[in-house]
Amino acid sequence: MLQWLKLYRRDQLPGDISAGLVVAMMMIPQGMAYAMVAGLSPVVGIYASILPPIVYALFGSSMTQSVGPMAIVSLMTAAVIGPLAPAGSALAGVLAAQLALVSGAVLLLCGLLRMGFLANFFSRPVMSGFTVGSAIVIAFDQLHTLLGAELSQLPQVHAPSAALGVGALLLLVLARFYMAALLRRCGLPPSAADIGAKLAPMLVVLGGILLMSSTGLAETGVRTTGAIPAGLPHLNLASSSPHWRVLLQPGLLIGFVVFLMSMSGAQALALKRNEKLVSNHELIGLGAANVASAFSGGFPVTGSLSRSAVNFAAGAHTPLASLITAALLACALLLPTGWLALLPLPVLAATIIVAVLGMLEMGILRTAWQYDRGDALAWGATCLGVLVLGVEAGVLIGVALSMGTLIWRASRPHIAVLGRIARTEHFRNIERYPAETQPELLVLRIDANLFFGNVEAVSERIECELATHQSARHLVLVMTAVSSIDTTALMALSELNQSLKRRGIGLHLAEVKGPVMDRLRNSSLLAELNGKLFLSTANAWDQLHTVKDVA
Amino acid sequence: MLQWLKLYRRDQLPGDISAGLVVAMMMIPQGMAYAMVAGLSPVVGIYASILPPIVYALFGSSMTQSVGPMAIVSLMTAAVIGPLAPAGSALAGVLAAQLALVSGAVLLLCGLLRMGFLANFFSRPVMSGFTVGSAIVIAFDQLHTLLGAELSQLPQVHAPSAALGVGALLLLVLARFYMAALLRRCGLPPSAADIGAKLAPMLVVLGGILLMSSTGLAETGVRTTGAIPAGLPHLNLASSSPHWRVLLQPGLLIGFVVFLMSMSGAQALALKRNEKLVSNHELIGLGAANVASAFSGGFPVTGSLSRSAVNFAAGAHTPLASLITAALLACALLLPTGWLALLPLPVLAATIIVAVLGMLEMGILRTAWQYDRGDALAWGATCLGVLVLGVEAGVLIGVALSMGTLIWRASRPHIAVLGRIARTEHFRNIERYPAETQPELLVLRIDANLFFGNVEAVSERIECELATHQSARHLVLVMTAVSSIDTTALMALSELNQSLKRRGIGLHLAEVKGPVMDRLRNSSLLAELNGKLFLSTANAWDQLHTVKDVA
Repeated sequence: MLQWLKLYRRDQLPGDISAGLVVAMMMIPQGMAYAMVAGLSPVVGIYASILPPIVYALFGSSMTQSVGPMAIVSLMTAAVIGPLAPAGSALAGVLAAQLALVSGAVLLLCGLLRMGFLANFFSRPVMSGFTVGSAIVIAFDQLHTLLGAELSQLPQVHAPSAALGVGALLLLVLARFYMAALLRRCGLPPSAADIGAKLAPMLVVLGGILLMSSTGLAETGVRTTGAIPAGLPHLNLASSSPHWRVLLQPGLLIGFVVFLMSMSGAQALALKRNEKLVSNHELIGLGAANVASAFSGGFPVTGSLSRSAVNFAAGAHTPLASLITAALLACALLLPTGWLALLPLPVLAATIIVAVLGMLEMGILRTAWQYDRGDALAWGATCLGVLVLGVEAGVLIGVALSMGTLIWRASRPHIAVLGRIARTEHFRNIERYPAETQPELLVLRIDANLFFGNVEAVSERIECELATHQSARHLVLVMTAVSSIDTTALMALSELNQSLKRRGIGLHLAEVKGPVMDRLRNSSLLAELNGKLFLSTANAWDQLHTVKDVA
Repeated sequence: MLQWLKLYRRDQLPGDISAGLVVAMMMIPQGMAYAMVAGLSPVVGIYASILPPIVYALFGSSMTQSVGPMAIVSLMTAAVIGPLAPAGSALAGVLAAQLALVSGAVLLLCGLLRMGFLANFFSRPVMSGFTVGSAIVIAFDQLHTLLGAELSQLPQVHAPSAALGVGALLLLVLARFYMAALLRRCGLPPSAADIGAKLAPMLVVLGGILLMSSTGLAETGVRTTGAIPAGLPHLNLASSSPHWRVLLQPGLLIGFVVFLMSMSGAQALALKRNEKLVSNHELIGLGAANVASAFSGGFPVTGSLSRSAVNFAAGAHTPLASLITAALLACALLLPTGWLALLPLPVLAATIIVAVLGMLEMGILRTAWQYDRGDALAWGATCLGVLVLGVEAGVLIGVALSMGTLIWRASRPHIAVLGRIARTEHFRNIERYPAETQPELLVLRIDANLFFGNVEAVSERIECELATHQSARHLVLVMTAVSSIDTTALMALSELNQSLKRRGIGLHLAEVKGPVMDRLRNSSLLAELNGKLFLSTANAWDQLHTVKDVA
């Protein structure tokens, strides 16, 4: 906690300041836009960009993560509170804050229980399919705002709104492709030009406000964000709600997605500078940030890869950059906010659509398609799940796919039949080496820890090998690769022992590791074993040797 | 399918007939009792014992499994339909049948998708904790029927009902402990005496009916099963219900439990006779049995370990025994059923309580407590979950524990730093063997398939080893134990390659297996590799050797 502050070097300051400035200018339109995605009033997005990053700077482990509103988490928030409260209503705000509290509590709990290993839950294709599906849903949802039409009456567009929205969209797309090149031609160094291009949304938003205030557009009925209350958010939590119980399960899912999204982004950046992320600290940092968001009128927040990448590129070396961003946003709320009231919603919708189009990254699908069709299928199933069944179902499909893959992988441990390499004490897989075997002796090496997930497969394989080695009177299990045996596997070994005893076959264990042996001493298996323990496979080979060696 | 019929031997017939008879006599009270547990009219339990075992005999793979009503699945059924329909009502029956249809469809689908590996999902401690918790809930639920009191007015018992119930309970407990010994003393062979003792519930039920019909007990208000409609069940499915959607998720959970319960029982029996279970066939068999139950007025069914054990002990060698049981039950429904109407419910409750007390098996908890406290904790969490939060929550807790364990295990692959055994071409773990190393060369053997679940742990370990071997200029990954690399791991390897390139460290792969190499050729990793491929670790050692060998 705050270790970066103790090690702070003065030469890191300019980078942190410039990154803090750039991200703040990105954050104002982005925060308002993502609050709109979540069906909340725009100021909520700014509230969620002040306290959460400050709290994350205290508890998180990533140096450059920019914690705040994020498109997909906003979409999930909308899916939960949409059916319970009208968009932009006070109740929607209360529910969003409570959702952040539930998610934050789940994350904190997981962090305290040291469950950071859950970060390995989704494969990258599943994660990518989920992201792409969500991006399409978000972009599609914004179409009616962009065109100034009701969703149910999409053909009837509001011409001034549509002109404004489509114009902003075109400008942003052009900026995306050409602005960096343009700035470079104006003499900016390449890195500064790239960062400058990221400020296009802020410029387009300012242009929209100027147009609204200087022309008669406001009178034609173009919808705007409306008055933004000045001043910092109040620190409290509206706890009276009839919906607490309904929020528990979605809060759990959102917490899960918050963690996965943030980790995947932070890992990509940490890799670039060889920094170390501690997943349990990330859980605590994100959990605390969401609780802070709940208490300061915000909604669920997470680390955003696109924003963190800008933070990183603009020179951020420590969380000080995020603290500067937060301070600037707080200042913005303390200054007069009347000018923001005229921000036309079609322009905000255009910034959302362009932002999420950047999430339509097909590289992972392409790699998976060439390399592993099963992974490509998982990508497709998750993406289609989000599109057809919604974002929550998409997460659950991802969970089911991951679980299925994990069990399936666990249920196929590698087991080798060993033979002796002639004139040595080495034993190797007879399928891969020319090795001697004995008809009365079956030597199997189990290349996995024994636990409930593979115990059935191991038993089946042993029976299968015994069936093909009918003359075997001794079965030796070589335990070099077994670092743990759980209770289920212990019981299965006991049953195997009983069954082999009935059939007159000895069960012997060779090269059992120390910690495994310590455990086994607490069970009755060793006492009941219908055979011996051997320190080495060679010992077992020699002692169980009844037929003369032909070598 | 029906393979057992083709291989049928005449000497198997007497055993199958006697087992069919014994199980039929067990099934009548048990079927009615478990229908009562599910909140259904007693005849539903008999319906569920006719067509389902016949269908299972056609599709299932266990020779001795007795498919029909089972206590825990009945409890889960009650938990679903209880809030939707009054106990014993026609609507309850419709919902129960629909629940069986949903569960059956889920099982059939899983079977067709070859998802039998899901049988490895629960560890035995989790399974045992779930069973014990459910048994306690069931026994407790029956107390008010046993005492003839309303649940809300438990102190006020109905004296004649309580006398009958407690009397039956005492008789059954005595029979449980002493009847087999008594029968043996009467000259029966031990195995026959054990089986005879299992018929005690039928005798007590008959005694109860006799008492009711011969004394004035019926007039005192002791509740009875009431008229049982004679005749076979009608083959149809009431499809009109406002609750289809509500049944989907519970149907999924019940299908899951049906499969796990049946597999664990069938495996225990198959082990005794060295028979082979095919989990995908089990899914199909159980799925078809539940669909058959749905279409013949039944409710969710599964294989019952206690009943299957009696079937096994009474001599069943093939599913013919179950067919005989089904035929006998069908006959019982075709004969006058008036006598069953007088069966006193307190006596039925007593049979349920004694039956589920047999499920209070603490052996697994004891073993786990001595051997692995983590497993004992999982037992406790699951059992407590069922007791406090209900049977559905219990299953979900079991799922969460299993998932957590799977990910946790997947996220700790074994990785060894290798050194050369002097004057040989053998490479071994330097922690376990006195082996030579070279300062410029770091040789790591990854003892796991690379996939999304462990890719992060592998990267971390590699970085950690590079940090302790600062002088290393070459990293050799020995891939002898890697049988597959998924897309996520492929991308992580690419990133590792890029990162090592930036740091001027070569990344080399040694002993890559054929199938893995074929896959890698479809990716860009080999072309971009900042190092070489070696057929053997010794080759890598020799070619990357820059410092003269000191040996």
